[in-house]
Amino acid sequence: MAHIKLPDGLPGIRGPLAFRPETAKPLGELAEVLLRGENTLSPADRELIAAYVSAQNECAYCQVSHGAIAAHYLGGDEALVAHVKRDPESAAISAKLKALLAVAGKVGLGGRSVRTEDVERARREGATDKEIHDTVLIAAAFCMFNRYVDGLATWTPEDPESYRQRAAGIVRDGYAGLSDRLAAAVAQARGEP
Amino acid sequence: MAHIKLPDGLPGIRGPLAFRPETAKPLGELAEVLLRGENTLSPADRELIAAYVSAQNECAYCQVSHGAIAAHYLGGDEALVAHVKRDPESAAISAKLKALLAVAGKVGLGGRSVRTEDVERARREGATDKEIHDTVLIAAAFCMFNRYVDGLATWTPEDPESYRQRAAGIVRDGYAGLSDRLAAAVAQARGEP
Repeated sequence: MAHIKLPDGLPGIRGPLAFRPETAKPLGELAEVLLRGENTLSPADRELIAAYVSAQNECAYCQVSHGAIAAHYLGGDEALVAHVKRDPESAAISAKLKALLAVAGKVGLGGRSVRTEDVERARREGATDKEIHDTVLIAAAFCMFNRYVDGLATWTPEDPESYRQRAAGIVRDGYAGLSDRLAAAVAQARGEP
Repeated sequence: MAHIKLPDGLPGIRGPLAFRPETAKPLGELAEVLLRGENTLSPADRELIAAYVSAQNECAYCQVSHGAIAAHYLGGDEALVAHVKRDPESAAISAKLKALLAVAGKVGLGGRSVRTEDVERARREGATDKEIHDTVLIAAAFCMFNRYVDGLATWTPEDPESYRQRAAGIVRDGYAGLSDRLAAAVAQARGEP
């Protein structure tokens, strides 16, 4: 049971987003620009960074959610996503993404864990300053999202199919309007107009 | 030296905020609503939570910055802020704030570290669900901000007076427009119109 009374039936971060729309709005806009905004890193790469950091932080809801979104972008390749979460260095991904995931993993341990060598490796594999910046911020943001979800002990569904369905919804509709969609769903469930 | 090329002369988070205005906007709006929005927790209480978590995460820039903002709200009581960062349980603050700081400290360790007992203690001391929610999200957000600042190895000034001055500016002008103000300052420094 969650630590506070959240709207019924909403898994993971969706409960607290619906509970507090004022904070949900900038959180959704941050996820939208970071994970779906115009970028030389593909949405799949960015969702893999999110899923990897969430796995390191042992946040069950976030790692399965963002893993499902990454898999959606990758044509359903859930095996690749699982491999990246477990051991990115041996996965079938670019050398640049491996180096960025290594930076992201260090950010998860703590900002001061990122060494000049880690950033130099990413740059050697072709990463730009903006890509390095965004990797650090995505990793840092998921250190927030993971703690938000688990710090309130939100509900983690066990059914993998529900994660695939929510992933398809995010790919179709984005993160930015999610809190409004949740608020509408909660109002409807309560029989409000 | 920072890990990426940031605008000159901007300390801590201000460098990356000016580097990437697209992400700076929702980050500023999140800080504004969380730390300064309408709330039964005072701005001083919320800045103390931010400073405490930043101290636990050993982020020098954030703990001094938000400590200075808390002290500003507390009529300049820097000794109280230092006490709270070091040992909140023995500081001259309310029992409710002590309990919320204990929750925040657990969030910093990882979301799953927050125990039902921690939340029950806060509730016993009078904390509402919204206050518990906001405490968890402030703590989680500073686990992001701290990693963003240190993961890019941004500049940490050593002069305490500069933190007091920036604190007064935040108290006066807020977080939401900070990225626009930084962008204007960077343009002016470059001699742009």
